[in-house]
Amino acid sequence: MDHKAQASPLTNTSNNEINQSRRNLLVGSAGAMAAVSLLGFTPIAKAAEAKTLPEYTRWKEASALIVHSANTMETERGAIGSGVVTPSDRLFVRNNLSAPSEEITSDPDAWEVNIEGVQNPRTLTVAELKRLGAETVASVLQCSGNGRAFFPHGASGTQWGVGAAGCAVWTGVPLKDVVSELGGMADGMKYITGTGGEKIPDGLEPKSVMVERSVPVSALETALLAWELNDEAIPLAHGGPLRLVIPGFYGVNNVKYIKNLAFTESQTDAKIQVSGYRVRDVGVSGSPDQPSMWEMNVKSWVTAPLENASTGRAMIYGVAFGGVKALEKVEVSTDGGSNWKQARFLGPDLGPYAWRPFVLAADLNAGEYRIVSRATDVDGDAQPEGRTDNERGYGHNGWKDHGVTVQVM
Amino acid sequence: MDHKAQASPLTNTSNNEINQSRRNLLVGSAGAMAAVSLLGFTPIAKAAEAKTLPEYTRWKEASALIVHSANTMETERGAIGSGVVTPSDRLFVRNNLSAPSEEITSDPDAWEVNIEGVQNPRTLTVAELKRLGAETVASVLQCSGNGRAFFPHGASGTQWGVGAAGCAVWTGVPLKDVVSELGGMADGMKYITGTGGEKIPDGLEPKSVMVERSVPVSALETALLAWELNDEAIPLAHGGPLRLVIPGFYGVNNVKYIKNLAFTESQTDAKIQVSGYRVRDVGVSGSPDQPSMWEMNVKSWVTAPLENASTGRAMIYGVAFGGVKALEKVEVSTDGGSNWKQARFLGPDLGPYAWRPFVLAADLNAGEYRIVSRATDVDGDAQPEGRTDNERGYGHNGWKDHGVTVQVM
Repeated sequence: MDHKAQASPLTNTSNNEINQSRRNLLVGSAGAMAAVSLLGFTPIAKAAEAKTLPEYTRWKEASALIVHSANTMETERGAIGSGVVTPSDRLFVRNNLSAPSEEITSDPDAWEVNIEGVQNPRTLTVAELKRLGAETVASVLQCSGNGRAFFPHGASGTQWGVGAAGCAVWTGVPLKDVVSELGGMADGMKYITGTGGEKIPDGLEPKSVMVERSVPVSALETALLAWELNDEAIPLAHGGPLRLVIPGFYGVNNVKYIKNLAFTESQTDAKIQVSGYRVRDVGVSGSPDQPSMWEMNVKSWVTAPLENASTGRAMIYGVAFGGVKALEKVEVSTDGGSNWKQARFLGPDLGPYAWRPFVLAADLNAGEYRIVSRATDVDGDAQPEGRTDNERGYGHNGWKDHGVTVQVM
Repeated sequence: MDHKAQASPLTNTSNNEINQSRRNLLVGSAGAMAAVSLLGFTPIAKAAEAKTLPEYTRWKEASALIVHSANTMETERGAIGSGVVTPSDRLFVRNNLSAPSEEITSDPDAWEVNIEGVQNPRTLTVAELKRLGAETVASVLQCSGNGRAFFPHGASGTQWGVGAAGCAVWTGVPLKDVVSELGGMADGMKYITGTGGEKIPDGLEPKSVMVERSVPVSALETALLAWELNDEAIPLAHGGPLRLVIPGFYGVNNVKYIKNLAFTESQTDAKIQVSGYRVRDVGVSGSPDQPSMWEMNVKSWVTAPLENASTGRAMIYGVAFGGVKALEKVEVSTDGGSNWKQARFLGPDLGPYAWRPFVLAADLNAGEYRIVSRATDVDGDAQPEGRTDNERGYGHNGWKDHGVTVQVM
């Protein structure tokens, strides 16, 4: 099936409604962005009502976000754009516990983090960390459950579509510089264990709700203790004053408001590690012998057009990333996966942990099109067609479910 | 003279006031940023009073900007940060004429640009341009007179310090794709001439004030007709709905609200080209035989610390760029240029037209330090020590004047 139109892209002089809508959506978003998206979203993941943002995220662009709850907001697919960096005011939010008081960001340099499992353990302020080193890394931040809405078994948890992800630029001190300053790691340590500074709700067993995650100590090579997001002090909603950043790892491992960082022999016994964020078959309970949501897998999705387009030339945009690996290529199909064409990466390459926007020009006649994208990383791993059904709906990177159906008129 | 302290960076436990101030300045700038910078600025370039932003720039961060006039606002040195991209709300503004009505950005895709000097001249809407191609380029935007405040002869014009510059990400259609669509360039054309859509004030001879600039046609290789800045529709203040972007060229060549783009045999006879933006000796009038402000030269400056720092380890930050050429290195001196150390580039490389933030750790005892930076491009061209005095104070890239004097206590 070949939907190519014969016309030059200029033959059809009507506007490209999709692009127009997307641009309108974004117009003036640096200031007052009142317009509501005309694009909508894959209905399955569309949050019903409220655009009212909770106080700690009030500075964000309401029209760019789907508010699932006070602790969960995803970026509208049509607001993801084709940029190499996701503007902070459009970046998704997911907090496992309520955020601490805004007061903790009033004097970021005074925030303290305790470092353990090193030769000379001690507490350091952010001001002190800033003297130890600095690095800037672009990395995709993505919730483990991004794409959960596409699982047919009704996986519990926030029904994320594609927008629980963004590409962020983090600045902080390389964790290995901190370790070096403190005499090196203690012997026999196998994990980096970070603890968040959220208040534990009264009456709950701390271990049952605390945000404390362990990742393999090999992540020391790239981990940062970060104080800036997109060249600004990290806002409270994104974990400021200080966040552990593990490039290429799922969001939950990037512990917000980090107050304790330990090199440990074992993984933490907090519930979020022991049974949470574990991939297992539908109906099975979480346990430590199951894979933990650490490194992200290769993934991509289309961001425009979404629902409608004019006949003639359409520019198909999307974003793609390889987790801890750089990308080799992205292919796009306008016929649901029967025929593929290689898309072109758009803009500068911000490194292996960043996403790459992509674009493909396609000439489309009137009709319905199923547009899908498929990324392949440098090791040759490509997105699968289907999904791996799992109890909590984690790690979905199947290209079929992530496509869009577009009416060309 | 060696100011190295013997102490570990952690020995001195007092805060690093400079970093703290800078971070405080930026805290929450995505939302309400009320704090006024404690950093100040090199006094020579400090605008006296008003922080009131003109209406078309009201969405910007007032505390990050020095307002010289309704058409000229520069970024505070302390707000430049160490990011690979300058957030739009901190980016400087310089309009040669008052901006058009905000209405022109209400439907960006309807904006029309007339293309001449091609085989098949015609008018294209932004919607049509969006079907012809897309590219994303990071490029430094800098006013020709950035650094004018450092000239001792009192060059007329806005007294820019270092902040009439930023690194912006532009998305648009490669101009060569437009030319190709229109049958190629007409024969014998030597310049790309762009005309801005500003209203000519009543009673003035249009050629005497209009923004119409010519650049060598070789710029066709990299030029864009851009509709996005930092992944949002270009705001009015920065030339939206459509701006001509000539990567690596001074700001004036990046024509805002572009309404006519012509390939021409000669340079335009508009005053801004004939006698404006010409480099000549002090006291000499502008004329076409003098160099025009086209490609930018290699340049850098320190962004932190600025006035004060604590004894011990200081992280010296700055930005550097090579105009149309990539950088080879940046060196930093804390003794006014007697001794130099190579700084480290910070963060991903966004390509040859982008700037590179840099950082150098220096251990400083109490005392006064003159901190300067010197960039060298891939062809081995380095910033000079001094300045080339010229009537209008253009193109200043001497490292000596751009340094900062810091009291370490």
